[in-house]
Amino acid sequence: MKLGDFSEDELKARQSELQAVYDRFKDARLSLDLTRGKPSTQQLDLSNDLDGILGGFFMLQDGTDVRNYGGILGIPEARRLGADILSLHAAQVMVGGNSSLTLMYNMIAHMVEQWEGEALDSNSKVKFICPIPGYDRHFTICESFGIEMINVGFVSSGPDMDGIEDLVSKDPMIKGIWCVPKYSNPSGHTYDEATVKRFAKLGKVAGENFRIMWDNAYVAHHLSDKPARLLNLMDEAVQEGTEDNVVMFASSSKVTFAGAGISFLGTSENNLAAFEKSLVPQVIGFDKVNQLRHVRFLKDLDNLSTHMEKHRTLLAPKFNMVQGKLQAALEGKNIADWTTPDGGYFVSLDTLPDLATTVVDLAAAVGVKLTPAGATYPYGIDPENRNIRVAPTFPPLPDLEKALDVFVVCLELASVNHLLAT
Amino acid sequence: MKLGDFSEDELKARQSELQAVYDRFKDARLSLDLTRGKPSTQQLDLSNDLDGILGGFFMLQDGTDVRNYGGILGIPEARRLGADILSLHAAQVMVGGNSSLTLMYNMIAHMVEQWEGEALDSNSKVKFICPIPGYDRHFTICESFGIEMINVGFVSSGPDMDGIEDLVSKDPMIKGIWCVPKYSNPSGHTYDEATVKRFAKLGKVAGENFRIMWDNAYVAHHLSDKPARLLNLMDEAVQEGTEDNVVMFASSSKVTFAGAGISFLGTSENNLAAFEKSLVPQVIGFDKVNQLRHVRFLKDLDNLSTHMEKHRTLLAPKFNMVQGKLQAALEGKNIADWTTPDGGYFVSLDTLPDLATTVVDLAAAVGVKLTPAGATYPYGIDPENRNIRVAPTFPPLPDLEKALDVFVVCLELASVNHLLAT
Repeated sequence: MKLGDFSEDELKARQSELQAVYDRFKDARLSLDLTRGKPSTQQLDLSNDLDGILGGFFMLQDGTDVRNYGGILGIPEARRLGADILSLHAAQVMVGGNSSLTLMYNMIAHMVEQWEGEALDSNSKVKFICPIPGYDRHFTICESFGIEMINVGFVSSGPDMDGIEDLVSKDPMIKGIWCVPKYSNPSGHTYDEATVKRFAKLGKVAGENFRIMWDNAYVAHHLSDKPARLLNLMDEAVQEGTEDNVVMFASSSKVTFAGAGISFLGTSENNLAAFEKSLVPQVIGFDKVNQLRHVRFLKDLDNLSTHMEKHRTLLAPKFNMVQGKLQAALEGKNIADWTTPDGGYFVSLDTLPDLATTVVDLAAAVGVKLTPAGATYPYGIDPENRNIRVAPTFPPLPDLEKALDVFVVCLELASVNHLLAT
Repeated sequence: MKLGDFSEDELKARQSELQAVYDRFKDARLSLDLTRGKPSTQQLDLSNDLDGILGGFFMLQDGTDVRNYGGILGIPEARRLGADILSLHAAQVMVGGNSSLTLMYNMIAHMVEQWEGEALDSNSKVKFICPIPGYDRHFTICESFGIEMINVGFVSSGPDMDGIEDLVSKDPMIKGIWCVPKYSNPSGHTYDEATVKRFAKLGKVAGENFRIMWDNAYVAHHLSDKPARLLNLMDEAVQEGTEDNVVMFASSSKVTFAGAGISFLGTSENNLAAFEKSLVPQVIGFDKVNQLRHVRFLKDLDNLSTHMEKHRTLLAPKFNMVQGKLQAALEGKNIADWTTPDGGYFVSLDTLPDLATTVVDLAAAVGVKLTPAGATYPYGIDPENRNIRVAPTFPPLPDLEKALDVFVVCLELASVNHLLAT
């Protein structure tokens, strides 16, 4: 039954019940953390063979010794692996260090110089479109460069393309858009075919210095046995002549070791050459030894897919448990909407308007840390204060269960309090 | 006998001899490379145990799992090692990724923002002092940020401090200086005590946003059994109250694997906090797994010193051979001055004025690549066109021997040709 249909007395009765449960949580002195999309210890254990996998062999087929300096674009073997992962040609792909985020930052720094060359209206700021809710780290990059961010929402097929096309056609200062096109962080969306095709056309309107930052962070991170299919944006862009507008990213951080893996950037060969040049003053080369480790360990797409199945075996029970807890506690009450993702690292939940902060605070007060409300929005501001990102991957299952028990009580208590106050 | 004292006929006779030898080099179809300061294969082999050294143990004493995200300043164990290497406190040291050059670049990017906040004379550029000859990669960083570089020469005690103090006292736009204080690249200088003490006072005149970029790249890279002693700049700076002016760097690139090691930055705790903040948008954390590998492998200063002795055993014969060849062919001829370094990776040689490019070209034409003439100067311009950097570390000894045979002939041939033409 919808909580909104409860009488005031019924609401008050429910409030006392919930408050009593909540008070007992206080006594439990919990310390649980659902804030970040980190792999669990068991997931990390899947890749322990990385250390030592080289067995004293450090030479590449082309005679390069990976233990010595040089080669900004990465070792050919790793570029081919990255190309397979991103469905590109090896010549379009470079392999970086332990962080695709750093490559994104470097790419924006590089683009800032391009934009400065454009003699844009100096009274107006460069702008990026940000489909929301989205990934806070993308927004932080924009903020650090003073790039103004414009929110655009999601529809079932992906980001609201009508809105995006309209914005781009009207404002030449819009120079980019952040996308997590598969199992989007946090909403779980995989962009449908029509959406990808519309992205491929976007550069025709937005101009040559517009960049689609296509962060394919969860490209192989399925939670179901029917993996979502994402159309290859680069293939479509080539047909439209917009391949310079496309920059793709992926990394092994949620495949092997988080923050100790390798990263990939894929774009047109044109763009890649210009980007490499921009890296020369700051980089002699990325860690080729670790690139070779990853090539030896991950081998190819088939082996990667087998490896990701092992992750899924560890992750699926956690995501199923979250769904079970949310359904059992909230179904039919009309106080929350949440996603049931087929992949990725998050469940995205919307509370009643204006309640996200309250729920997060209530949970924090009894020892359950959630991602700060607003974090999934540019500038940390969720205009409706509704979105909460749940990150179930890191805690062991029993801890996650406890954390969800607390979360649903906080959510319902905040909702009942709110309904009684209005 | 000095070539300058030869009669014209004697010079012509010598010219024919040298030309004949040079022409035979052409037939030998050599392909030798003395361009970069890269460790040799044998040196790299000294660290092969790095891969696999973790043996499945990824936990730190404080409970951190190095396989997961987080921790921009690096793992405590590695910060302590870096502090020992740089003679600092661990709280003053952060550990980065595979490149201290990247940390230097990031530090300058961070300082650029500080300088912009200073409301400096907008008709004038920020300037850096560059002791010359120096390290080309330092100069490239300045160039990429549009920082104007001012050459200052060396005297026997280190950089010309009179010149430096004079410049700094007259021009508030001078915001930094590049130093390789031990076994300087390429001159081999180790700055003496008085020089370091004068550096410690520099900030008092230059102001709080002035940075001494103290690149201690060869801190443990001795070639003699009487290692040079370098006074601790930070200790002196603390006494002068100028510790915010000091930023130190070191890396394991020429200790373990080149470009696959770890890097260190040391500065005041004040500076470190501000620098960390500037890194947040671009970095979640550096590769902690590789940091832990290095801590397990290098252990402590004693063990590092034993390890560096093994490098020395491989390097000393090469440097001795270079000295032998230069002496045998050039001694007393008054056509070149060169250094006899006690450490580091280079021999720096000065030709007669205006001949460096000619010598490098002559060598290249018979298959011996030298560092481009001018590379050791800002903007690649050696005003006297005299300096050549010889990098003996990478080639096997027999190759190095051949390359030196070619080099001395090219040098003398160019000198004789020059003397005949003037």
